[in-house]
Amino acid sequence: MMTNTQKHKTVTIVGTGVIGVGWITRFLANGFDVIATDMAEGAEERMRAGVEQAWPYMKERGLADEASTNRLSFENNMQKAVKHASLIQENVPEREDIKREVLAEIDRHAPEDAIIASSTSGIMPSTLQQDCNNPERVIVAHPFHPVYLLPLVEIVGGEETTQSTIDKAKTVYKQIDMKPLVIEKEIEGHVADRLMEALWREALHIVNDGIATTEEVDAAIIYGAGLRWAQMGPFMTFHLAGGEQGMRHMLKQFGPALELPWTKLKAPELTDELKEKVIEGSEIGAGDLSVAELDKQRNEFLVRLLDLVEEYWPKPQTIMKDE
Amino acid sequence: MMTNTQKHKTVTIVGTGVIGVGWITRFLANGFDVIATDMAEGAEERMRAGVEQAWPYMKERGLADEASTNRLSFENNMQKAVKHASLIQENVPEREDIKREVLAEIDRHAPEDAIIASSTSGIMPSTLQQDCNNPERVIVAHPFHPVYLLPLVEIVGGEETTQSTIDKAKTVYKQIDMKPLVIEKEIEGHVADRLMEALWREALHIVNDGIATTEEVDAAIIYGAGLRWAQMGPFMTFHLAGGEQGMRHMLKQFGPALELPWTKLKAPELTDELKEKVIEGSEIGAGDLSVAELDKQRNEFLVRLLDLVEEYWPKPQTIMKDE
Repeated sequence: MMTNTQKHKTVTIVGTGVIGVGWITRFLANGFDVIATDMAEGAEERMRAGVEQAWPYMKERGLADEASTNRLSFENNMQKAVKHASLIQENVPEREDIKREVLAEIDRHAPEDAIIASSTSGIMPSTLQQDCNNPERVIVAHPFHPVYLLPLVEIVGGEETTQSTIDKAKTVYKQIDMKPLVIEKEIEGHVADRLMEALWREALHIVNDGIATTEEVDAAIIYGAGLRWAQMGPFMTFHLAGGEQGMRHMLKQFGPALELPWTKLKAPELTDELKEKVIEGSEIGAGDLSVAELDKQRNEFLVRLLDLVEEYWPKPQTIMKDE
Repeated sequence: MMTNTQKHKTVTIVGTGVIGVGWITRFLANGFDVIATDMAEGAEERMRAGVEQAWPYMKERGLADEASTNRLSFENNMQKAVKHASLIQENVPEREDIKREVLAEIDRHAPEDAIIASSTSGIMPSTLQQDCNNPERVIVAHPFHPVYLLPLVEIVGGEETTQSTIDKAKTVYKQIDMKPLVIEKEIEGHVADRLMEALWREALHIVNDGIATTEEVDAAIIYGAGLRWAQMGPFMTFHLAGGEQGMRHMLKQFGPALELPWTKLKAPELTDELKEKVIEGSEIGAGDLSVAELDKQRNEFLVRLLDLVEEYWPKPQTIMKDE
């Protein structure tokens, strides 16, 4: 974990459900001052309990020098809460009308140079920034549950967002030990949730068609591909599976399988242009490492991961009942 | 890793490409005698080199008492190679005509009580067993690369396969430290590859539509959901995201999102029957653990996983170039 150098910058977290509490915990653990705001009855108590529960994990990960839960305050009034923040992170319910209204109000009361970020998992930033007077500083910054542990944050700018806002936002999220992934083109669901949603929908089809139970679907992930996905995405995985020639060989070998009805999802046509994108991208992703070196690295990782994960896999009475 | 008690049972591996070598290594490491057969020129040398390369990882995982690469022999003649095997694992190229022919020949020469298993990733066992005289002992046993490290094996019986064959096969794969997952209903691609294929097709659409590069797609997996998937499948993940009410709450909250165009894959209709299947299944999957307890377990795992995986993530010059 990074030691912060930004000396008590203040961020405001609007909406203190599970995602809001995740952000609060992560910012606190990295030495920030945090103001939380939420209109719901009992919100402060629930929020503080949530932070307390997550705090031991942050300690284990390593706290920033001046990190403290004493840097957390709660403010009922949202207008006041956002007044001195350098970044405001919005986490209200996932409804366009509510989010647009809240973001417009934040925009009216936040300092002019503050970044306003929405945690929305699905709505596009161009939609969300429409009612703001200073839409150029409004972005989507979509985190993953549990926010205090998972490092991914998708940053998406809308039509009105400036590049300097995106650059500043990246810097802040790096300061809280995250991996900011800037998505160039807005789409509903951004990128990560589209991938997960494809898998999720296929899983529902499999259960619906009586092919496997939910426990079996889960087992089909965690004992196989899931072990690889902690370290390697689908493209790099196929790059390795292609042997010395990597993705180039793989597309020749398994390209035709894209025509097979192996999922309910129709694949795009494998044009020369798409092939080149995929091959080049995989080679860039591999960096200086040959497939053999990547293979070795993955194996070392898997051996250590297996030792770790075996302690945490489901007990035999659940999946694989008769073991 | 298990200590084997079966005293030098002999298995035969037909086809010694990457998957074949994976099987050979796993069986050897668990104390089996292995006969390998492959007609390709130079197959034995490549195969032995592959086993040597994988062996250090098996040592690190822990070898069975009498495990040794000296228990490996190579036999050019397939008919001889299968003659005394208790299980024959077929790994020839993924083409129906080739596999059917090879399996029929194995069937003619193997002992009558031997199990004949195909590693096919896509073809259904009812199709593969058609030309065999004793189709009742023919199954699909689909492993995942690298076979010597990933424990998942999907076992699928065809129309002619007997339950006792499936039971015997499960026992053997458990003896080599695998997690056999019996799939009740045959479909092309079985279960795990259908899930992966849905994600893979969506990833190709994302790259094809210029939303993100291949490196960014990979990053969107490994820094987020990928970290969870090593320990928890999609259903259990949503069960936890639903708070105390688990999946029941989750389907109420995010069911409507299935209508959104968040992927190119159309979701099944969320009927009452499907809802009940998914809710009940998630509750069975949770076993005796409450959502709060599962949450705690996942967090402990993630903290330890993060420490481990950070060493193995791509170097900054590849993904997230400017770090």
